[in-house]
Amino acid sequence: MNYQELFEQIKKKKSFLCVGLDSDINKIPTHLLNTEDPVFEFNKAIVDATAKYTVAYKPNIAFYESRGAEGWISLEKTVKYIKENHPEVFLIADAKRGDIGNTSKMYAKAFLENMEFDSITVAPYMGEDSVTPFLEYKNKWVILLALTSNKGAYDLQFIESDGKKMFESVIEKSQEWANQENMMYVVGATKAEMLSDIRKIIPNHFLLVPGVGAQGGSLQEVAKYGMNNNCGLLVNSSRGIIFADTSEKFAKVAEQKANELQLEMAELLTEII
Amino acid sequence: MNYQELFEQIKKKKSFLCVGLDSDINKIPTHLLNTEDPVFEFNKAIVDATAKYTVAYKPNIAFYESRGAEGWISLEKTVKYIKENHPEVFLIADAKRGDIGNTSKMYAKAFLENMEFDSITVAPYMGEDSVTPFLEYKNKWVILLALTSNKGAYDLQFIESDGKKMFESVIEKSQEWANQENMMYVVGATKAEMLSDIRKIIPNHFLLVPGVGAQGGSLQEVAKYGMNNNCGLLVNSSRGIIFADTSEKFAKVAEQKANELQLEMAELLTEII
Repeated sequence: MNYQELFEQIKKKKSFLCVGLDSDINKIPTHLLNTEDPVFEFNKAIVDATAKYTVAYKPNIAFYESRGAEGWISLEKTVKYIKENHPEVFLIADAKRGDIGNTSKMYAKAFLENMEFDSITVAPYMGEDSVTPFLEYKNKWVILLALTSNKGAYDLQFIESDGKKMFESVIEKSQEWANQENMMYVVGATKAEMLSDIRKIIPNHFLLVPGVGAQGGSLQEVAKYGMNNNCGLLVNSSRGIIFADTSEKFAKVAEQKANELQLEMAELLTEII
Repeated sequence: MNYQELFEQIKKKKSFLCVGLDSDINKIPTHLLNTEDPVFEFNKAIVDATAKYTVAYKPNIAFYESRGAEGWISLEKTVKYIKENHPEVFLIADAKRGDIGNTSKMYAKAFLENMEFDSITVAPYMGEDSVTPFLEYKNKWVILLALTSNKGAYDLQFIESDGKKMFESVIEKSQEWANQENMMYVVGATKAEMLSDIRKIIPNHFLLVPGVGAQGGSLQEVAKYGMNNNCGLLVNSSRGIIFADTSEKFAKVAEQKANELQLEMAELLTEII
């Protein structure tokens, strides 16, 4: 999916919502545990219920990998199901990978080729040749960690050199490797005021913003400091939607929660569309 | 495995060799492709041939993940086989993971609990709470990326702040989270002269050193600048051993290559044992 197609979907759905499929088997509704692949059944129901309000889905790979080969199969089936039934949505592998060149190439193959994700989150620490193998796929994206939403973000990401914080160096350096058509950045909603500094470096890029809801970030603040003329935002919510209810009505409640966020987003989007 | 047990193994085998099981299915001997699980058969033969010269094995997870659920099964079988047949060796999941706390916890479960690896490589960018979930397992280790062996290492790892390079900040910060009994560091052999600076900060920690052989680093240099009284080094070789020969004699040749390195290491170890 390219930049323009993503923006078209945002305009059509009046939403920049990304739903995080952090589908922990210990947290999904217990009545699903009798099915053959509970996590897949859960994801399918969540996706079908929320797709009209959602422009992107983001499975965090850890929740699948922790279940070994079985978890990997749930993930593959989920991606295939979304591709077939909701082909308009943008798919993010939240994998935070990054290794030396020939190894990153293998990760790129796993996520962007074999599973056909549209994008993958990548950790920047190992630099250019750890990132570029993911950029070799047309209309696919790297989403580079810049400023994360967790407490540990303050350990390294704010270290200053020549008046530049580490996360700003990450963003600046990576301008040499990629552009707004194949790179986005992770910027946590818990540090929304930083978005205006980031917009000075990259006015046009899309930003993937986790941390709204359970982690405490505010959607209004994110839009205020981060939205650009092409929206330029994908705001993620995971637990607040997918685990809002764990009874047999879980999908219905997830739909309501997604709809609530989408309505807020529609309001914020009136500024630009 | 604890620090002392690892050093005992090093003394016994007169080796600090780690063999990287980067078992790319496209590079293994073709006669294995007719077996049910070619990568597992390959690993089994390599491990049986090299174990007497080797103190650690390090599968790079990318080569398994690129084959989906099937690759994951090869990995699980490999780990189980090593645990059962060569229980003295140290097992490293070269995964370079790292995510917010509740997610890192899932990765820790996948590698340290379900698969019983002794250790996992972790990327430092997200800071303390992305690393500590991996430290909750007794006698298991985090191997934190400090100074990697690739070209891209120069992009961020050398950025200076207050006279300290980023990789030095990573090492210093992480002293607050862990100690020499549960943390090691990745330091590339291609930058061996940096090892003496690193030894000023962490004289006693073990260092995992990739980049000897195919990537151009020298074993003598690594020992000169990096060895301490408890050896303190695990030097990795992957391609130079496992793909030294791809005929039916591959295991025999791998054994010779491992033996050659072990003999060099035994010579270097005479300084301390």
